[in-house]
Amino acid sequence: MAATHRPSDKTPRTERGRITLRKLLDAAATEFADKGFHEASISGITRSAGVALGTFYTYFDSKDAVFRALVSDMSAGVGKAAREALAPSMGALEIERAALRAFLEFAAEHKEIYRIIDEAEFVDPDSYRTHYETIGARIEERLRQGGDSGEFVPGLGTPEAWALMGMNVFLGLRYVIWGREGDPDFTEIARRANILLTQGIGR
Amino acid sequence: MAATHRPSDKTPRTERGRITLRKLLDAAATEFADKGFHEASISGITRSAGVALGTFYTYFDSKDAVFRALVSDMSAGVGKAAREALAPSMGALEIERAALRAFLEFAAEHKEIYRIIDEAEFVDPDSYRTHYETIGARIEERLRQGGDSGEFVPGLGTPEAWALMGMNVFLGLRYVIWGREGDPDFTEIARRANILLTQGIGR
Repeated sequence: MAATHRPSDKTPRTERGRITLRKLLDAAATEFADKGFHEASISGITRSAGVALGTFYTYFDSKDAVFRALVSDMSAGVGKAAREALAPSMGALEIERAALRAFLEFAAEHKEIYRIIDEAEFVDPDSYRTHYETIGARIEERLRQGGDSGEFVPGLGTPEAWALMGMNVFLGLRYVIWGREGDPDFTEIARRANILLTQGIGR
Repeated sequence: MAATHRPSDKTPRTERGRITLRKLLDAAATEFADKGFHEASISGITRSAGVALGTFYTYFDSKDAVFRALVSDMSAGVGKAAREALAPSMGALEIERAALRAFLEFAAEHKEIYRIIDEAEFVDPDSYRTHYETIGARIEERLRQGGDSGEFVPGLGTPEAWALMGMNVFLGLRYVIWGREGDPDFTEIARRANILLTQGIGR
């Protein structure tokens, strides 16, 4: 068998272990974003995490493995940021607006996410595809719930979910990564995207 | 000055020259898509184009230059495919539907476009950004015209244009690059995206 990811083998069991793992993932995000996958090194990651080189191997087998774990961690981070922005009282459309705003804020705090996810297309295509399929499925489920509650039209599915994901990703690209002086703020971007999503642009 | 792109220097003046340039760009698309930028070689491009190695330098100074020209050629190809799908009689919404359908067909014919544009983010960030800014500006202009004609709501601008571009790019990613047995066809995808765009998903 090829070197597969076996997270269960190396999942930390103590709080201290979880803190070290977090440090390694944060350091890996910076290292991969600054240098790109090929130039990045395990020693660069451990140096910036402030842990011994040997400690790295308690958590990961290889540079590939930490990269894969980082992509998965970022997918989870996007999901967590969206969930934390939601309140039980929100309707389906309000949820989409809050989720987009939370995503823009998450991306602004973690600008490296675009570079790392995009490099996964070349370094680890399975992680790249899983990242978008996971988020797409999450959005599709929200659209289905909105249809069930009667707030959205019925019959929404994969095409609408991917369209909405693409909107959000490209609004982040334009307003977070390539943001300019004088751009509308994230609240305003999320408001305008939500109007497009709710009412469309047809008169 | 750094090695800048000087297309005017090397633009072919004869029909035969234009045919050779086309062959080189098509061969470059295959070479870069198959091997990635770093592994791709000028000799691989000329071999697959069936032209002499020296001929390459009549058209391009370097591997970087042919890559840059290819990204620009692909941007132009997307624009041309959209324009050719349009008829003077079409309304603004019909234009968006036809443009998306044409883009999906173009991407299906040129599946390498995703890999090459996405690799430009790392190999030639300026080309990457120019690619999306060019397409975004083109969409924004169509939205403005639709607002002027009264078919779209007034006041559409950059956020709506980038949202629409993201929708189209991600529908291509899902249904062209990662297409599956049993997926709806491109006409149906464009129809559903157009409903979302026209009416939104709110009830």
